[in-house]
Amino acid sequence: MSSSGKIAGPVQALINEFTKLPTVGPKTAARLVFHLLNRPRHEAQALAEAILGVKDKVRFCSTCFSLTELDPCDICSDERRDTHCICVVAEAKDIYAIERSDAFNGRYHVLGGLISPMDGIGIEQLRVKELIARIGAECPSEIILATNPNAEGEATALYLSRLLHSLSVTVTRLAYGLPIGADLDYADEVTLAKAVEGRQRL
Amino acid sequence: MSSSGKIAGPVQALINEFTKLPTVGPKTAARLVFHLLNRPRHEAQALAEAILGVKDKVRFCSTCFSLTELDPCDICSDERRDTHCICVVAEAKDIYAIERSDAFNGRYHVLGGLISPMDGIGIEQLRVKELIARIGAECPSEIILATNPNAEGEATALYLSRLLHSLSVTVTRLAYGLPIGADLDYADEVTLAKAVEGRQRL
Repeated sequence: MSSSGKIAGPVQALINEFTKLPTVGPKTAARLVFHLLNRPRHEAQALAEAILGVKDKVRFCSTCFSLTELDPCDICSDERRDTHCICVVAEAKDIYAIERSDAFNGRYHVLGGLISPMDGIGIEQLRVKELIARIGAECPSEIILATNPNAEGEATALYLSRLLHSLSVTVTRLAYGLPIGADLDYADEVTLAKAVEGRQRL
Repeated sequence: MSSSGKIAGPVQALINEFTKLPTVGPKTAARLVFHLLNRPRHEAQALAEAILGVKDKVRFCSTCFSLTELDPCDICSDERRDTHCICVVAEAKDIYAIERSDAFNGRYHVLGGLISPMDGIGIEQLRVKELIARIGAECPSEIILATNPNAEGEATALYLSRLLHSLSVTVTRLAYGLPIGADLDYADEVTLAKAVEGRQRL
């Protein structure tokens, strides 16, 4: 459309870059650009520098493969954390979700993905060898499988639980059921079935 | 919360910067950061450079006060555009919305805001003097007031229509009514009232 040529070049360039981000469509991108245009330059510069900083300063923890500025990461180097329990997650961001819950005080292991034959991701692309090596070296008593409750997460958890069966470690997974604040009426049938199946004695 | 200290510094720094943008909450910000971490460095660099480019290369058009890399802007310097009609908008981004409709071939004038006593924005903060000077210099035959159909937009349009009354120029405003694809049943009563009021002969 000829009219898009009317948008100032640098404005369109930034709209294009923002649109490459997840959850950002062209309208949101334009809104972000006009916001930045209305803010002082140092704010835009702080954002630009933070973007480069995250690419240049963040690396994988050599123990748990979470993202960190210093290796080993804060969690792996924290003496107060329980070394007997390793929580296995798909991605580093899952760590932050679990940390926010304040319900876990052990350490983590980031697989770097989930088994997904459709995307050509098999077990050899995941950090499973590293997990087994850690279990051998650290001798934890429990491995919590905290993969997402979807097809890929379930497949990965099932595979790992079978693989770890031979090792002398308890393997658990996160509970499934109704989310707090939910309404039975609106719960989907699979969740409800899981909630009935996993019912707890009071 | 102590756990937030577990997020690698540069990751948290970028989450903080993203959260300053409109429509971006902490969860979306985290998602954007992890997306960038998974992309090649040159993509992150393109985004960072586009952010600085928009601050360093974009200026106001000295005629219409839209955003432009070259002054006068593409629209003001386009010989094929109708010089007899000026469309008055609150913000430069409104120009792009109208351009996308392909329904207007005149020129624009950006007020730089709307009258809003609550925010301390009076008529003297808007580019009204500049509009009157343009009307004197360019002698347009029509001024379209294309402010948003809300309290501030209406107040500004009313003020401008009275102010321009003494000049020999036709003042119009955008039509109000049902949006295309709407359902009478779901239309709010004010819109419906405007649609009845502005009904057209077939």
